[in-house]
Amino acid sequence: MRSTTGWQADGATRTLRRTTLERRDLRPDDIAVRVEYCGVCHTDLHALQAHTDDANGMLVPGHEFTGVVTEVGDAVSGFTAGDAVAVGNIVDSCGTCPMCRAGQENFCREFPTLTYGGTDRQDGSTTLGGYSREYVVDHQFAYRLPAGLDPAATAPLLCAGVTVWEPLRALGVGPGSTVAVAGLGGLGHLAVKMAAALGATTTVISRTPDKADEARELGATGFVVSTDPRQLEAVRDRFDVVIDTISAPHDLAPYLRVVAMDGTLSHLGHLGPVTVDTIDLLIGRKKLSSAGSGGRSSTAAMLRFCAEHHITADVEVLPSSQVNTALERLERNDVRYRFVLDMSDLDLDY
Amino acid sequence: MRSTTGWQADGATRTLRRTTLERRDLRPDDIAVRVEYCGVCHTDLHALQAHTDDANGMLVPGHEFTGVVTEVGDAVSGFTAGDAVAVGNIVDSCGTCPMCRAGQENFCREFPTLTYGGTDRQDGSTTLGGYSREYVVDHQFAYRLPAGLDPAATAPLLCAGVTVWEPLRALGVGPGSTVAVAGLGGLGHLAVKMAAALGATTTVISRTPDKADEARELGATGFVVSTDPRQLEAVRDRFDVVIDTISAPHDLAPYLRVVAMDGTLSHLGHLGPVTVDTIDLLIGRKKLSSAGSGGRSSTAAMLRFCAEHHITADVEVLPSSQVNTALERLERNDVRYRFVLDMSDLDLDY
Repeated sequence: MRSTTGWQADGATRTLRRTTLERRDLRPDDIAVRVEYCGVCHTDLHALQAHTDDANGMLVPGHEFTGVVTEVGDAVSGFTAGDAVAVGNIVDSCGTCPMCRAGQENFCREFPTLTYGGTDRQDGSTTLGGYSREYVVDHQFAYRLPAGLDPAATAPLLCAGVTVWEPLRALGVGPGSTVAVAGLGGLGHLAVKMAAALGATTTVISRTPDKADEARELGATGFVVSTDPRQLEAVRDRFDVVIDTISAPHDLAPYLRVVAMDGTLSHLGHLGPVTVDTIDLLIGRKKLSSAGSGGRSSTAAMLRFCAEHHITADVEVLPSSQVNTALERLERNDVRYRFVLDMSDLDLDY
Repeated sequence: MRSTTGWQADGATRTLRRTTLERRDLRPDDIAVRVEYCGVCHTDLHALQAHTDDANGMLVPGHEFTGVVTEVGDAVSGFTAGDAVAVGNIVDSCGTCPMCRAGQENFCREFPTLTYGGTDRQDGSTTLGGYSREYVVDHQFAYRLPAGLDPAATAPLLCAGVTVWEPLRALGVGPGSTVAVAGLGGLGHLAVKMAAALGATTTVISRTPDKADEARELGATGFVVSTDPRQLEAVRDRFDVVIDTISAPHDLAPYLRVVAMDGTLSHLGHLGPVTVDTIDLLIGRKKLSSAGSGGRSSTAAMLRFCAEHHITADVEVLPSSQVNTALERLERNDVRYRFVLDMSDLDLDY
């Protein structure tokens, strides 16, 4: 086994502590990655909450990171030491089910192996995430970092980015499309950038009127305050696609009303049951959908697109020793728009 | 005013009684139609139930009928006395909102005028339906009956038929598509015929194993018993489109599981709130939608298609005096697949 350092919760508390942790010795298809930057995702907060509640085992969060290859397994030919790479929130899948064969490993019927809190398909161990200085991963779930993309600001593309990219692409967003993005946080701000870069006329729907200027800077040409019924009425039946990134449970009816005929509301912000009135789908044959994470091919395509269009996340980079501050501030939405941890401080003794 | 006879509920009872009722004198755009055949729709049952509960005014159901033009208004040039026509469940709309301008009068923002129980846009009267010997209607909401279509078996196309036709067309069903139809009743059996005629590979999903032969006769090549988990699992992620015509509230999860990646479940059977778990939409980016009734242009297109492909409803024709028997049997699903009332007995004295 290999040894590295990282940030873990032990179940007794939500506060992460610096710890030594083990990584597996490289299998033939593995690469070892020195983690440089890891994004802080809402999922990490949820995982910490759930972990505290059941208090079993060790949790190391982190599932959107960039770094540098330090070593490659015997069967790896596509990567070499020194390559800049990125890893997202899945690190393995069955590879044989219809979803995997269709390139949608994120929908693997046997469930993809999550980057942390998952179960390794070979040795049954629990995966430990990217809030650490080293990660060992099957090279098929690592992506070469395109030239020109800032490694810190790219890290959030691997989860937040691909989660909005897949529905935008699957719903055919391009020139001539009208897209609304509800909620302007980690997912939302990337959805605005990507939709605008795809050629769509893009509008932000937000509770917060003072985000209008930011929305325009991100590429939106429209801004609607969701608490103003007149503004919502003015865009009724308007948008081919609504990307709903609001992270708290909320009434979907006002957002379905602004979907155009035969259009789609892609509800991405949270999991769990949602209730809609059939009539809100019937009038205009509107569609409610969702999406999450990305397959390998679309993740690679997303990175190429972002390099071409100079898209990265707007990030606030903190040394990894401030991980607890980042999580606390994220919980109260005090970030524009994504925290990224700089892992280099894990090399320091203290 | 004109006088005719029909079948009405007065609010004190769900039993329909023969009555004399008035029709308006023809406005310039109106035609008078001698109603020959009127289908019996689940909506009629619901309307009678609601009417009994609040017990106001007069209810004459019936919103899918065929007949013969007897007189035309001064401004009508497209119809003449003797023409065979069909009328569906909407008879007017605002004509100016974006939905009307898009040819989707069924989604009129000011709500379309329903064929019965609606409010006439000019005189404010309550519309009385097609369970009657004469109906007066704006010619823009009447459709010429194509040659070769049996008038009795065509009547149900005007509500049940167009309600399944619009989503099939809007979802792009054609050669190469895989379609499942859940529920084999009035809507379902027409969905099977239309999907098969559009070139789709069509499967019926039903609780009732003994409907397998009927399903094949209607044009389905597959049959899945919904109560058998193995049969459902065998078609997981299979269908581009699932047309769900089940009229009782039910769990949508098993039906979402059989939708293909990026496919759509069109939930048509009943109105009201539905709850789904986001994860059932997320895995495979599946879509939940609905639809109902049809715009004028798609209703006309549907009738042309049905004439070309020799599609009508499978009906049991009863004299209109047996309307109460028809409603009772419909309530216990004792019909394959649609009752149609023959209105000619209203000419008899008794």
